[in-house]
Amino acid sequence: MIDIHNSKIDISIGLDKAGFVNIKHPISLSVSDSEITNTIATFDLCVGVDSKTKGISMSRFISILNNNQVINWNEGTIYPILKEIEKEVKGIGVFYKVNFDFMIEREAPISKQKAFMPYSATIEASLKYKDNQEIYDYKYGVTAVGKTLCPCSKAISDYSAHNQRSFVTVNLRSNKPIFLKEIADLIESEVSSPIYPIVKRVDEKYMTELAYDKPKFAEDVARGIYARLMDDKRVTYFYVSSRAEDSILPYDAYAELEIYKYTN
Amino acid sequence: MIDIHNSKIDISIGLDKAGFVNIKHPISLSVSDSEITNTIATFDLCVGVDSKTKGISMSRFISILNNNQVINWNEGTIYPILKEIEKEVKGIGVFYKVNFDFMIEREAPISKQKAFMPYSATIEASLKYKDNQEIYDYKYGVTAVGKTLCPCSKAISDYSAHNQRSFVTVNLRSNKPIFLKEIADLIESEVSSPIYPIVKRVDEKYMTELAYDKPKFAEDVARGIYARLMDDKRVTYFYVSSRAEDSILPYDAYAELEIYKYTN
Amino acid sequence: MIDIHNSKIDISIGLDKAGFVNIKHPISLSVSDSEITNTIATFDLCVGVDSKTKGISMSRFISILNNNQVINWNEGTIYPILKEIEKEVKGIGVFYKVNFDFMIEREAPISKQKAFMPYSATIEASLKYKDNQEIYDYKYGVTAVGKTLCPCSKAISDYSAHNQRSFVTVNLRSNKPIFLKEIADLIESEVSSPIYPIVKRVDEKYMTELAYDKPKFAEDVARGIYARLMDDKRVTYFYVSSRAEDSILPYDAYAELEIYKYTN
Amino acid sequence: MIDIHNSKIDISIGLDKAGFVNIKHPISLSVSDSEITNTIATFDLCVGVDSKTKGISMSRFISILNNNQVINWNEGTIYPILKEIEKEVKGIGVFYKVNFDFMIEREAPISKQKAFMPYSATIEASLKYKDNQEIYDYKYGVTAVGKTLCPCSKAISDYSAHNQRSFVTVNLRSNKPIFLKEIADLIESEVSSPIYPIVKRVDEKYMTELAYDKPKFAEDVARGIYARLMDDKRVTYFYVSSRAEDSILPYDAYAELEIYKYTN
Repeated sequence: MIDIHNSKIDISIGLDKAGFVNIKHPISLSVSDSEITNTIATFDLCVGVDSKTKGISMSRFISILNNNQVINWNEGTIYPILKEIEKEVKGIGVFYKVNFDFMIEREAPISKQKAFMPYSATIEASLKYKDNQEIYDYKYGVTAVGKTLCPCSKAISDYSAHNQRSFVTVNLRSNKPIFLKEIADLIESEVSSPIYPIVKRVDEKYMTELAYDKPKFAEDVARGIYARLMDDKRVTYFYVSSRAEDSILPYDAYAELEIYKYTN
Repeated sequence: MIDIHNSKIDISIGLDKAGFVNIKHPISLSVSDSEITNTIATFDLCVGVDSKTKGISMSRFISILNNNQVINWNEGTIYPILKEIEKEVKGIGVFYKVNFDFMIEREAPISKQKAFMPYSATIEASLKYKDNQEIYDYKYGVTAVGKTLCPCSKAISDYSAHNQRSFVTVNLRSNKPIFLKEIADLIESEVSSPIYPIVKRVDEKYMTELAYDKPKFAEDVARGIYARLMDDKRVTYFYVSSRAEDSILPYDAYAELEIYKYTN
Repeated sequence: MIDIHNSKIDISIGLDKAGFVNIKHPISLSVSDSEITNTIATFDLCVGVDSKTKGISMSRFISILNNNQVINWNEGTIYPILKEIEKEVKGIGVFYKVNFDFMIEREAPISKQKAFMPYSATIEASLKYKDNQEIYDYKYGVTAVGKTLCPCSKAISDYSAHNQRSFVTVNLRSNKPIFLKEIADLIESEVSSPIYPIVKRVDEKYMTELAYDKPKFAEDVARGIYARLMDDKRVTYFYVSSRAEDSILPYDAYAELEIYKYTN
Repeated sequence: MIDIHNSKIDISIGLDKAGFVNIKHPISLSVSDSEITNTIATFDLCVGVDSKTKGISMSRFISILNNNQVINWNEGTIYPILKEIEKEVKGIGVFYKVNFDFMIEREAPISKQKAFMPYSATIEASLKYKDNQEIYDYKYGVTAVGKTLCPCSKAISDYSAHNQRSFVTVNLRSNKPIFLKEIADLIESEVSSPIYPIVKRVDEKYMTELAYDKPKFAEDVARGIYARLMDDKRVTYFYVSSRAEDSILPYDAYAELEIYKYTN
């Protein structure tokens, strides 16, 4: 059977990426030292292609994915997967990205009722070459929702203040693995009040008052997380974005910050 | 050239709907007696099919759409479009649905600054047959965003109250045309505070305090709109939904109500 | 602490639905007699509300969800969950809806390579009252993607034919439980060719030729499924929609059919 | 009235971006020398913030947007808008991004029937500072849908070949303005066959055969556009991505290429 993927090409240029995107696949992942999320994730898997290769043999990506459904957080098992993809698909460099939702059991602050809180996460890993040197990059992060209360509204109003859902994303590189739950905890400690999946009236009162006592702009949330991550020696790079779905406006307030701590 | 659409079929059953969905097309529409929105809308256009017709000749839908880019709100021009589709496509009954965003210039309550506020709308029209009687149905509505402040949170907290974006939808049938702007106005008068596209500090103070003085559950918003539409003689049927993107929970509070006022 | 949800209301009208929507929660579900999907689902949970109740005590929904993460397909465990919600939340009638993705291991037709194929599903259940009679309704279904090849394009072209992804939805009521995998199998047998998650060249050749030998309009797919479900004594009601993301047009061809087989 | 945005801050770090995202606003834009699209666009508008500023005065963004609804393609009016934002909002650098759909009237290849074809576009502009030098960047591009037919499937099958919708994005920097229509034309000339908004049987035959005669992988589309843009002296930088919504797989084939032609 003819292999068109290996036939001659007319336009001799390499490709930065060739592969598959929007692959749905089951994963099992430790989000803390005691909690595992089982879910269906969305993967993008690509390789770099040289100027002589017409097309790549894509079915290998899926075989490798199939053999690696458990993302073993503690031991950094992503690197060998990338090496396997590179070898099997015959690419020059590899790009691996996975998005998924995960859940953490949370306890309401006063009633102590427990239920599952949803978060989303991204892992991005790549293998590149520069001056014949292999460069491996591994970046991961969490988007969590929290409540922010507007400091301006509080200061100028005779009573109350507008507050809203804020979506905060922290992506980072680290020299030691950091559980996704720890990143979610960090975000929730820097908003005006965390949000809980189950809330009784005693919790509602507590959260309402806490948020009023701790007002935050989108800018403040980004800066608060900055201060915390600057103090964390495990973190070598981070990106923070904070997007407040403002309850007095039809669009979202936004702040963003990116820090390369160590050249590493 | 063979016309497969008119060839014999094996399975002799009529279809409730056959046609095209997700058609993007430019429209021009009067949203009030003085404001026109020009935008790109999304259409679903279908007909009923009898048990002898294999497939329908679909290109006619697009020709007819092309000839009717201006949706003339005042004169109810949808009916002749449906009749034209039915005749040209040779269907039994017609289904017409269009979704689009529209904008209304709004003035901030205190600073009087003006800018454009976004809304979304749906028009659904159909032609059916029952006992050889033609039944024409025409339904339209608006989704608007407003601010709701939680009455429970206000009552139990020593100070402040949680508040959030609420998305309220009103769909209705009427015996006289009602402008989309009027429906948007109705929704905004029944939330805790309208949202404005441009807000100065004096407006922010006003909106914060107004919302605290007028707390509303999702249920209250639906009921408030109910009371208003029951009093409106033009309205013969309505559906209201109110969805609060709660700022203390990761999911949305919801209330829904549907009223057939007159058999009409 | 004041209970505002139980305070007097001004506008005395019942609500068709009040509750929570867009709740993310983990589920575990048997999709066939040997395969389980673990994933994060999205729930809508509502009750009907009488004209004297201002607001409902919503946290109970989440407690009940928390106690019912395993959706036990074989024994129809949804009914007792609805009864529990109705009692705990003090509603009049209950509405339960859950959407989720699930995966089935599929084998490529020639190479016999195995990988996971994604599908999506919906379960809708409700409890209503009419003339003091309780009416329990339970409906479920699958959306699967398949390949359809256009019969018209094949007939009029000297060679080849356009083909595309089609998204087919079957929702049904049954007097015996039918596994989601069985519904997915049915859909895949009625398109021009099933789609597989892993495909070698021998499979690609097979699928290409199979689709050309078995051309189908969106209308044909709906009618083919109609014929199959009419013959299935377990099925008492069904809805089929077939949406082809046409590869020669920027919008989708669509066909829909709904059959109430038995008054049941 | 207190101005909290100008109050002292605790954490002294500048922000890369602060502003508003997801702003819906009407625009009017020349997509060719004779065609104008009127639609509702989505804007992200941010500035850089220094380490002493707590929050920015955001309402100015909207005033400026309001005064610039016509995006005058021929004269590059984006730069003065950025300068105005920077001055009014007192930022250090500006980020401007707008996404919108636009329509071009297209004529079917044989029947010559005319209708509107949908495309989407992005304009990104920024103002930054490096070593006290202002750096202005302006990038724009189009995503268009076309038909691609798989060369492998054609080569290995006894007859027919699988084909599908492909979404191709070209973003570029240029030293002379290039109309969005011209970019859309380029993309459509490099797929297996363009897609048309209205298609008669004679057109369908033509497109089916054309695609079979001109098979293309996602990789081929990216490379074809590469060759064309390398020859275009107006283009100083480009990014191409090609994503095929494969009709034999549940995920998408993807290729990507980025070229900095001149340091410019």
